Amino acid sequence: MAPKTDNRMDQDALVQFLLRLGDNTLVLGHRVSQWCGHAPVLEEDIALANTALDLIGQTQLWLGLAGEVEGKDRDADALAFLRDAWDFRNLLLVELPNGDFGQTLMRQFLFDAWQSIMLGWLIKSTEPRVAAIAGKVSKEVAYHVERSASTVVGLGDGTHESHERMQAALDYLYPYVGEMFQSDETDAAMVAAGIAPDPSTLRDEYDALVAKVLDKATLTLPDGAFSHKGGRTGAMHTEHLGHILTSMQWLQRAYPGAAW
Amino acid sequence: MAPKTDNRMDQDALVQFLLRLGDNTLVLGHRVSQWCGHAPVLEEDIALANTALDLIGQTQLWLGLAGEVEGKDRDADALAFLRDAWDFRNLLLVELPNGDFGQTLMRQFLFDAWQSIMLGWLIKSTEPRVAAIAGKVSKEVAYHVERSASTVVGLGDGTHESHERMQAALDYLYPYVGEMFQSDETDAAMVAAGIAPDPSTLRDEYDALVAKVLDKATLTLPDGAFSHKGGRTGAMHTEHLGHILTSMQWLQRAYPGAAW
Repeated sequence: MAPKTDNRMDQDALVQFLLRLGDNTLVLGHRVSQWCGHAPVLEEDIALANTALDLIGQTQLWLGLAGEVEGKDRDADALAFLRDAWDFRNLLLVELPNGDFGQTLMRQFLFDAWQSIMLGWLIKSTEPRVAAIAGKVSKEVAYHVERSASTVVGLGDGTHESHERMQAALDYLYPYVGEMFQSDETDAAMVAAGIAPDPSTLRDEYDALVAKVLDKATLTLPDGAFSHKGGRTGAMHTEHLGHILTSMQWLQRAYPGAAW
Repeated sequence: MAPKTDNRMDQDALVQFLLRLGDNTLVLGHRVSQWCGHAPVLEEDIALANTALDLIGQTQLWLGLAGEVEGKDRDADALAFLRDAWDFRNLLLVELPNGDFGQTLMRQFLFDAWQSIMLGWLIKSTEPRVAAIAGKVSKEVAYHVERSASTVVGLGDGTHESHERMQAALDYLYPYVGEMFQSDETDAAMVAAGIAPDPSTLRDEYDALVAKVLDKATLTLPDGAFSHKGGRTGAMHTEHLGHILTSMQWLQRAYPGAAW
């Protein structure tokens, strides 16, 4: 096989980077959509459905661009519905089960906070198509983080029961946060090309935002620096991702190319 | 379209009849397999896994014959993995969620009792291939019903907690029993050809067996003659069947013709 040119290597890295963004929003969007019809009150139900729709809309943009850069005739649908678990590049955080309403909103906040900071950087990306998508979706994501943060505060600083549940959710989810800030050769290529930041450089701003919200919520970060990893590199996913794919992909698998 | 000959109509009815038998064991086998690694004690876990394997083995025979009679080159795998919910002909009873261990065993008993009586008749079927399968599997089914009956007795006539759970399971499941004894034109064709009995004629023997076991189990049949229906005719399935198919069929849908 001929050695890849630098340009081709950059393109492959860009595809990986875009899959990471698009798979995060795809898997989280699917997870959040599972609440449809089940949330504790009607307004929250509609709000969660809207969040899910936003995330799926973002997925179409990120995966659509990933397919375009890849140049193998795979559109966003093909990437979403016809890849198997080992080809997914999402953070493990977003594939975890919903748990109760509080756990779902805690996960949403931990993700929204990261996503809003990442998008703030990507608006300045040297890759104009990345910058354009970031600009387009950053407003809805700013609203997501405002909303999930205020729910975390409301439930954390709420009743004894809601406080306990939110603390338990944080204890369960926080070990999945570290993965957001890990770097590898894909990130190095993005940094070199000015397309995206080194993830680790976003940590201080993230920690400050999370600390501010958790403080208002009277919640405490768990001890321990351990973090699960493997999702964004594709090295390892939890068993939950496979179960998500069986239901998410069944229709396209059973009826390839179905349109409506 | 040319009118069907009587013979072709009989063959179509025979296919439907065989799908009913094979879909019952397929869906129940899949349901029972979901207990693997989760049963309350190791011996029960192994026993349930063995029951599931027996049921899947029976499925290969019934669906294998269904495909042979149908003559469209669909083998047991194709019939199991490549049909959609509306083409399934299983009783609604077998697609219901497992619930707790007691509910799973109550459903197993209600099914085993019916299956053992049906097989006792089918051994005398005028269709030699049906009689051969019935003869082959009736021994293991005799063991299934012995085992599920004794578990129903042990838990029904057990602690207060286990008794309450078994009564709740019976109350939930019993309205799905009536479907076993409904008849339609497929059954009429089977009766006319001497292939299978009219389902309604099995009811007395079934009721006597169930009454004997429930009496020992100190459990009471719920009031009311209502029975859910639609599974064996394919007119209606519960939403649970679709969820079963997404996981059961995913691999064959994603990797058509996969072999190992």
